[in-house]
Amino acid sequence: MEHFADRLAAAVRRCRNPVLVGLDPRADSLPAGLLADERRADPAAVAAAYERFSCDVIDVVSELVAVVKPQAAFFEQVGPPGMVALGNVIAYARQRGLLVILDGKRNDIGTTATAYAQAYLGPPPLSPWGADALTVSPYLGDDSLTPFVDVAQPRGAGIFVLVKTSNPGGKMLQDLVVDGQPLYRRVGEYVERLAQQTHGQCGYGAVGAVVGATYPAQAEELRAVLPHTWFLVPGFGAQGGTARDVAPAFDAQGLGAIVNNSRGIIFAHSAPAYRDRFPADRWQDAVAAATRDMIAQLAADTPAGRL
Amino acid sequence: MEHFADRLAAAVRRCRNPVLVGLDPRADSLPAGLLADERRADPAAVAAAYERFSCDVIDVVSELVAVVKPQAAFFEQVGPPGMVALGNVIAYARQRGLLVILDGKRNDIGTTATAYAQAYLGPPPLSPWGADALTVSPYLGDDSLTPFVDVAQPRGAGIFVLVKTSNPGGKMLQDLVVDGQPLYRRVGEYVERLAQQTHGQCGYGAVGAVVGATYPAQAEELRAVLPHTWFLVPGFGAQGGTARDVAPAFDAQGLGAIVNNSRGIIFAHSAPAYRDRFPADRWQDAVAAATRDMIAQLAADTPAGRL
Repeated sequence: MEHFADRLAAAVRRCRNPVLVGLDPRADSLPAGLLADERRADPAAVAAAYERFSCDVIDVVSELVAVVKPQAAFFEQVGPPGMVALGNVIAYARQRGLLVILDGKRNDIGTTATAYAQAYLGPPPLSPWGADALTVSPYLGDDSLTPFVDVAQPRGAGIFVLVKTSNPGGKMLQDLVVDGQPLYRRVGEYVERLAQQTHGQCGYGAVGAVVGATYPAQAEELRAVLPHTWFLVPGFGAQGGTARDVAPAFDAQGLGAIVNNSRGIIFAHSAPAYRDRFPADRWQDAVAAATRDMIAQLAADTPAGRL
Repeated sequence: MEHFADRLAAAVRRCRNPVLVGLDPRADSLPAGLLADERRADPAAVAAAYERFSCDVIDVVSELVAVVKPQAAFFEQVGPPGMVALGNVIAYARQRGLLVILDGKRNDIGTTATAYAQAYLGPPPLSPWGADALTVSPYLGDDSLTPFVDVAQPRGAGIFVLVKTSNPGGKMLQDLVVDGQPLYRRVGEYVERLAQQTHGQCGYGAVGAVVGATYPAQAEELRAVLPHTWFLVPGFGAQGGTARDVAPAFDAQGLGAIVNNSRGIIFAHSAPAYRDRFPADRWQDAVAAATRDMIAQLAADTPAGRL
């Protein structure tokens, strides 16, 4: 299996953009006609609507971008039928040629961490869910992260460890100063060591970092000291991050970062910038327009324009 | 809905022990006859075996203890059929009168954290999974924890936040010194504030802390400064924690802590202490014996003897 970082670099280069489309289905935001009000209490109906909506989004964005990121929480919210839908969405995205990063923020110790890794990482039948990468939380420490690396690496899969997240409350732990440095820097430097140990031909490792768009100064600092680490950048759009804010996350070639947008793309049909341009039954066209606009913004204001 | 901490206190008092049985099914550890070797590659067969095994364990331990803790990772490892089994196991445990703490170590920000909370916390149909409590990781900070509290509290549910975990690698972040105090202490003090804000009649809050059995000195320190916080104590048994090690986690009445044992109970049939006493087709008797032995050890060497 080809190295995760090399597959990611090749896919981003092929699409000539670093946009990561977040698949965060929410019952109260779906386009009209996908889920009747009277069926919103029926988990099977909600799960079916999430699956159809996500696959419709995938049909649009697979022509434009390299990577999608299903958010596990929204599928888990529907119960077991939601998890069946999540499995189908991951499989469909892979079938359409997309890389899939499951946003599950999983973490545990020892063989339990191994179970999570075996669950999600690598193509079926190696894993039943078949994601290419998984987001992972670091609070449990090094021996909770290495089991993910040990499973991911031989399967050509990757992980993204939470380092500096996009939410205001992230500072509560992540910005605490230890020996003169913020905690996120220490976590980031550990991630860089794992990335070095797992680097592919492109120079980046199978272990990446989550670095929020809402903290450009920290992204610049981390980019300088984490040269082998792919950044998954959340917080663009709805959370306030702009293309200029994410520019420091890239290397000089326009690689090294993928920038997530969830609501701003998948629910573009109800956003002020798009809702008047596209009738309700053409919501997919709003998704395509929002994706193209984000690609253009990143090309204009970040090194991704060199891709 | 009655308060989570009060329900937990009442259940522990009724059973007169603080044992928490961890439901961690693993294909290679199941008793003979539950999963044929040639069916181990079939997710539906593995899921069915996990469900039957877990429900058989529940039948035994529901006569003895108050709480079970399914480990999400092992069910997720089986893919979507495993998640269907997890839902059935939670429902069965509740039907047998047990409190259910789902060990998922979930965490995310804002409405995504709310989605996880709505997924897992509270009885159906309030949540599709129907757990009484969920383990939660704190790396994303305060605004990633309060959405869980906001959902849990009105539903009579609770959360347990990772504070000082049982694994050696936990020290990597948790023991870092910030302003003269270890990080786990700071997280613990934040959890205590949430516990105070959500306290029930028993004095404890709907927000608890995970505090590993393998660090008795830290448990003693935290018990003293977190008087409203229930401790979920992992690390007893297979990880090396003894009854004496967990004693400091209790208050003087023998409340305030529940002590988890997973492998040591559910796979007692293959443990040296039990395998010669019980033939393979009586593995449930080994589960009962191991549970009774743990109850006796905690009664002898901890304040839980006063329950």
